[in-house]
Amino acid sequence: MFPITQDILSRKASELGILDVSTATIRQIVALSMALEQEANEKFVHLELGNPGLPASSIGIEAEISALHAGVANTYPAINGIPELKKAGSRFVKAFLDIDIPEKAIVPTVGSMQASFTLQLLLSQRLPGRDTILFFNPGFPAQRHQAKVLGLGIEQFDIYEYRGKALEGKLEEILSKGNVTAMLFSNPNNPSWINLTKEELEIVGKMATKYDVIVIEDLAYMGMDFRTDFSHPFEAPYIPTVGKYTDNFIMLVSGSKIFSYAGQRIAIVAMSKYVYERQYEFFTKFYEMPSFGDAYVFGVLYTASSGTGHSAQHALAAMMNAACDGKLNFVKETSEYGRRAEKMKMCFINNGFHIVYDKDENQPISDGFFFTAGYGDMDGKKLQEELLRHGISTITLSSTGSEQNGVRVCVSTLSKDQDFDILDQRLKAFKNEH
Amino acid sequence: MFPITQDILSRKASELGILDVSTATIRQIVALSMALEQEANEKFVHLELGNPGLPASSIGIEAEISALHAGVANTYPAINGIPELKKAGSRFVKAFLDIDIPEKAIVPTVGSMQASFTLQLLLSQRLPGRDTILFFNPGFPAQRHQAKVLGLGIEQFDIYEYRGKALEGKLEEILSKGNVTAMLFSNPNNPSWINLTKEELEIVGKMATKYDVIVIEDLAYMGMDFRTDFSHPFEAPYIPTVGKYTDNFIMLVSGSKIFSYAGQRIAIVAMSKYVYERQYEFFTKFYEMPSFGDAYVFGVLYTASSGTGHSAQHALAAMMNAACDGKLNFVKETSEYGRRAEKMKMCFINNGFHIVYDKDENQPISDGFFFTAGYGDMDGKKLQEELLRHGISTITLSSTGSEQNGVRVCVSTLSKDQDFDILDQRLKAFKNEH
Repeated sequence: MFPITQDILSRKASELGILDVSTATIRQIVALSMALEQEANEKFVHLELGNPGLPASSIGIEAEISALHAGVANTYPAINGIPELKKAGSRFVKAFLDIDIPEKAIVPTVGSMQASFTLQLLLSQRLPGRDTILFFNPGFPAQRHQAKVLGLGIEQFDIYEYRGKALEGKLEEILSKGNVTAMLFSNPNNPSWINLTKEELEIVGKMATKYDVIVIEDLAYMGMDFRTDFSHPFEAPYIPTVGKYTDNFIMLVSGSKIFSYAGQRIAIVAMSKYVYERQYEFFTKFYEMPSFGDAYVFGVLYTASSGTGHSAQHALAAMMNAACDGKLNFVKETSEYGRRAEKMKMCFINNGFHIVYDKDENQPISDGFFFTAGYGDMDGKKLQEELLRHGISTITLSSTGSEQNGVRVCVSTLSKDQDFDILDQRLKAFKNEH
Repeated sequence: MFPITQDILSRKASELGILDVSTATIRQIVALSMALEQEANEKFVHLELGNPGLPASSIGIEAEISALHAGVANTYPAINGIPELKKAGSRFVKAFLDIDIPEKAIVPTVGSMQASFTLQLLLSQRLPGRDTILFFNPGFPAQRHQAKVLGLGIEQFDIYEYRGKALEGKLEEILSKGNVTAMLFSNPNNPSWINLTKEELEIVGKMATKYDVIVIEDLAYMGMDFRTDFSHPFEAPYIPTVGKYTDNFIMLVSGSKIFSYAGQRIAIVAMSKYVYERQYEFFTKFYEMPSFGDAYVFGVLYTASSGTGHSAQHALAAMMNAACDGKLNFVKETSEYGRRAEKMKMCFINNGFHIVYDKDENQPISDGFFFTAGYGDMDGKKLQEELLRHGISTITLSSTGSEQNGVRVCVSTLSKDQDFDILDQRLKAFKNEH
C-alpha cells in the first residue's frame, strides 16, 4: 500500500545499484518502480517511460510480415537503406515539412537513438577543434549521455530564460567561442513540450549558417503540436522546421512515437543535400571517403550495427507512404495524447501543482506527450522521491538539463477514466502530506 | 564482357569515391563490382560479401510474425533483452559449448557488429591506461575499424607465424606491456577459416587470466568446423571455446550465419558471470553503476540504440530453443558451405592458385564459409584488381590485417554447378593472362 516509507525506497534503490534516483536513467527508474510495486503490492502510476500508449500501426505490421514472407531475413540490409524507404522518407519530409531531401540523403537507423549517437560521433570529427555539442535544455537525457560516453564536449543552456529574441544573444555568446560543431534540440520538446516558434527557428538557422554549426532537429514527436492541424499531406500549414532557414540541418524522424512503432527500433536520418555532399579533409584521410554522407553511412553506421533490420525498414516505408497518401492520419491518431494531457494537467493543478514550462512566448503550450510539473518550490529530487513514495514514477527536470524545480510527466500510459481517478487520489494523498 | 580494362576499373572506383581498392570497405567493393557489372554487361562472381547463401530459418520467421501479431511493435524492448531470449541464449550456450552463463549475462544486440562496437567502447574505459584492443590477424576488418573510429589503441599480429606453442610467447610479449584491455578473435576465423586448437585456446585463456585481459570470442560461424560433428545438443563433442580456460571471456553469438538471419540484425552477447559482476571504480563514477554488466546494458547499449528490435529477439529465441530441442540442426544446414568450399578450392587450385592459410598446426583446415587464396607471389592488391577485371570480386588479405599475399573468398553466393563452371572459366582466363 502507498505511501511506502523513505527507508524502503532507499533500500530498493540501493539493491538495484542506483546511487542517486534523481540522476538515474529512465530505465533504472522503471526497474525501481517495478520493485516498489511488489513491495507495496499495488500498481504504480507510470509517468516516467515514454512508451507509446497506442497500438502500433497495422499498416507497418502488415508490411513487415509481407517482407518476412518475401524472404528478406537472410540478406544483410544495404547500409544506406532499402530503396523503398529512401523514397518514402524523402516523400514524407516533403509532404509534412515542405522540405526537399534527395533520396540518397535519407538513411535508416536503429531508432533515432542510434542516429544521435552516431551523428554526434561523426560531427565531432569533421573540423579541427570542433568537438562540442550544444544541447538546448531541457532535453532528452540520453542524448547528453551519448556525448559524455563518446568523450565529447558539452555546452548547454536552459531555454526557459531565452525565448524569442533573447535566444539570438545566447546562441551568439556560445557559438562565437568556435568549439561547437552541432546543436541539438527536439521540437516539440521532450520533456517540456514547448515548441520553438518560427521566429526562434529562424534565429537558430541564421546562427547555424553564420557559425558553420550543424543543427540536429529531433522530430520524434513530429506533428504533435495540436494547436495547429498539420494532418494534411502536401498542404499548408506545414510543420515548422529549421530546414526552412539554413542548409546546415539534419532531421531525425523516428517511427517510435508518430506510428507507435518503438518496439522495432526504426527511424530515418534526413540530411540536407548540402550536409550530405560537403567534403572534409579529415574524412578523406580517416574514412577514405570525403563526403559527410558517405562517411556517415559507410564509415560510421556500418561499424555501429551493419545497418538497420530489413523488415522494420519495410514497415516504416509503408507507414510513411500511407501517411503521404492520406490513408494513415498519424497526427489525428496521436492527438489522443493531447486529450490525456489535458485531463492529467487538471489532476496536477487541482492538487496544488503548476506547469513549469507553460508557454511558447505568449501562447500556452500545446497538450501532448509530455508536460512538466512543479510543486511550490520543492526541489526536483525531493518531489520525485515523494511522488515515488505515493506510487507515481517520474523523472526530475534536472536530469533533463533543466535548471527549474520539477518533474517530467509522460501521459502515454493513462487512458481510462479510472486511470485518471487513481492519479488524482495519489496526488491528493501527496498534497495532504505536504 | 570480361576482362574489363584497368582504365575502366580505375575510373569506376574513382567515381564511387574509392581512393584505394585494397583498403576499401566490403560494402564499397560490392558497390564497385555492381558498377562494373553494368559496364561489362555481365554478372560478377561475388566472393566479397559474406551474405548467407541459404534461406532464413522458417522457425525464426514464424516466431517473428507471431510476435508482431501479438503486438510487440509498440513497446520499447527491455534493453537487457526479453526473458525468452535471455533464457534461450543461456540454454544454447550450454547445449553446444557446455558453458554455464546466467540468464542476466545474456544480452541481445543489433547483430554482433553492435556488440563488438559497444563492448570495445566499454572495455577501453574499465581500467586506467588500458585503452588498447589486441586483434588476432587476419580478422574481420570492420572490427579493427571500430577500434579506430572509437579512437582506441590497436595491437595486432598475424597468427600465421604463431600457431601452437609459439602463440604463448607472442601473447606474453604483447600483453606484458600492460596497455591491452581485451583481445578479439573469431573461431572459425573470418577470413582464413583457421580454427584455434584446444591447446591454443588454453594458451589464450591462461594469458587472459594472467594479464587481466578480457577475451572477446566471436562465434559468428559457430559449429562450422565441419571436421567434427558438433550438431548434437547437450552431448559431447562440444565446440571448443576459450570459456573452458578462463573466466575473463565474452562470447558473441550472432544469428546472421548460423541461422541465415543476417537481414534482421540479431545476436546475443554472452559474458561470464565473473565479467558481468565485476565492479570498477570508473563505472561507479561515470555510469553510476559499478558492475561491468549493468554499465554495458544501461550505460552503453541504451545509448547505442535503446535496445534491439522486439520481433527479432523472439525469432532468435525460437531458433535457439529449436536447436537445443534437436528440431533445428543448424550445423547440418550450414554444412552446405563446406560442400561449396571444397568445389571452389578445386577451381582455384586447378588454375594455379594455392590456399594461403592452409592448416591448423598439422591438420588441413576445415572447408567452410571462407578460404584464402594466393597466386604465386602476386601481391594482394594486384591480385584483387586483376580478379575484378575478370569479373570476380574479393577482398585483399591485407585489408584483414594479414601480412600474407592473397585474397579472401566467401563461398556463400555460389551453389549450382553452373556457378562453379563460370568461376572456373574466369579463373582460367585470369591464368592465361598471367
